Amino acid sequence: MGQWTFFNHDFLKEEDTKLHFRDLSIQRGYGVFDFFKVINSVPIFLEEHLNRFYFSASQMRLEVHYSKEELKQIIYELLKKNNQTDTGVRITLTGGYSTDGYQISNPNLIIALHSLSFPAPDQFEKGVKLITYEYQRQLAQVKTIDYLMGIWLQSIIKQNNADDVLYHQKEMVSECPRSNFFIVSQNGVLITPSKNILNGVMRSKIIEVAKANFKVEERDLFVDEIKTAREAFITSTTKTILPVKQIDNYMFSSSRPITSVVFRKVLEVQQNFINSTSR
Amino acid sequence: MGQWTFFNHDFLKEEDTKLHFRDLSIQRGYGVFDFFKVINSVPIFLEEHLNRFYFSASQMRLEVHYSKEELKQIIYELLKKNNQTDTGVRITLTGGYSTDGYQISNPNLIIALHSLSFPAPDQFEKGVKLITYEYQRQLAQVKTIDYLMGIWLQSIIKQNNADDVLYHQKEMVSECPRSNFFIVSQNGVLITPSKNILNGVMRSKIIEVAKANFKVEERDLFVDEIKTAREAFITSTTKTILPVKQIDNYMFSSSRPITSVVFRKVLEVQQNFINSTSR
Repeated sequence: MGQWTFFNHDFLKEEDTKLHFRDLSIQRGYGVFDFFKVINSVPIFLEEHLNRFYFSASQMRLEVHYSKEELKQIIYELLKKNNQTDTGVRITLTGGYSTDGYQISNPNLIIALHSLSFPAPDQFEKGVKLITYEYQRQLAQVKTIDYLMGIWLQSIIKQNNADDVLYHQKEMVSECPRSNFFIVSQNGVLITPSKNILNGVMRSKIIEVAKANFKVEERDLFVDEIKTAREAFITSTTKTILPVKQIDNYMFSSSRPITSVVFRKVLEVQQNFINSTSR
Repeated sequence: MGQWTFFNHDFLKEEDTKLHFRDLSIQRGYGVFDFFKVINSVPIFLEEHLNRFYFSASQMRLEVHYSKEELKQIIYELLKKNNQTDTGVRITLTGGYSTDGYQISNPNLIIALHSLSFPAPDQFEKGVKLITYEYQRQLAQVKTIDYLMGIWLQSIIKQNNADDVLYHQKEMVSECPRSNFFIVSQNGVLITPSKNILNGVMRSKIIEVAKANFKVEERDLFVDEIKTAREAFITSTTKTILPVKQIDNYMFSSSRPITSVVFRKVLEVQQNFINSTSR
């Protein structure tokens, strides 16, 4: 590919960007990251993603050697060097080269482009099928690199002809491995879990946008209740909004008036952000 | 250090043993490993460690490209090349270079020496202090690289002047992050949790050894019960057996007759293994 990455202090060729095997990510799965999309050279909601990145790092006691402004400059320079206007960017911070394989060390920082895989154009119409699964992500508010369960569950998802899994603990719903979750109740209220979740940047934007038109509740939400909902959707940086057509055996109507309004509104917010930030 | 490692198909210098940042261990914390000690050039209980390694790999759908016999030959050659008679050996198998950063790919295999850190000589006399913490390791029977919680808890362990943490879920005790757990009841029965644990090789050896002299129960064990026990100890490859002096506020007697017998017996088993395997 010959793309550039940023590694600790230097711009490197992607193929040369490697971690020694004693890094704590490889030894102990210890690290954090964040991921945002770039459209028309504009990193979307960069401020929010960087804030969360610093929060994640601090929760995991990993030092970031750059200020937010410095990271932004590095990101802009990386995009320029790669001559990319539309891409995903991932910032990864690992536990570093640990002498005893257990203590946190001087973190390794990698900033790299990742091609964006948006949902297929007809996916919004078709919707996704979720299956519920009892599991709670550890340190849920921290964007750690721990996707062990999400990846391990791929085969069960496939066996059930599903697209993704919806985690719950003792029937209390949290999120999907890489998305937040919303329902629209029969009387038109948007409800999304408030606890034991990652605070998705897209989730926050959607709550903000939806509040202008609908009642929105962030609160405990149980499996029973989602199976009475009128609409349901999942949200993430790459998906923005994807309607849910089915959860376990419960089928949602293919008419999704409220999801459609919220989707249109959040795309507007995103477009306004691009227009106002372009330079 | 200039030591040799084995990486996929080749013996490499340790400093050249690196993973590209797109490996699924770095991106998603996805990988397994096993670890055993080598004494007088004898890899201790190698068969059991390799069996567990293959079990872990298969549970995580990671293909091992070598048979057990081939792995053994590689390990013996690695020890010889490094001219090491006493060391730790770690076999790590990761999710590989994933194209989309989520699907399992062709695994990367790393076999490397890790210096053994045995407990200090007076640690057996002193014993360790544990604090209980509610947490359940995901895929507990699989030796994954996920030690996120164990490492994250280090600061809480320190704050409590403790040496390690003992996991429980709803008061049901499982294990420490890197050790199995036993108690000796007031009437001299050894009890160790049977569920939601890693099947430690040392744990199995100890159960086997102890059964000759004592009653041993593998069963559910609750926080309440451990705080009535006469003795308690933790077990692992490097620790063999370490007595517990305190759990939360509960103090154990410094007289540990049964722990001492079991410890002496398991050291004998280990020595017999070395004597009978040396060549």
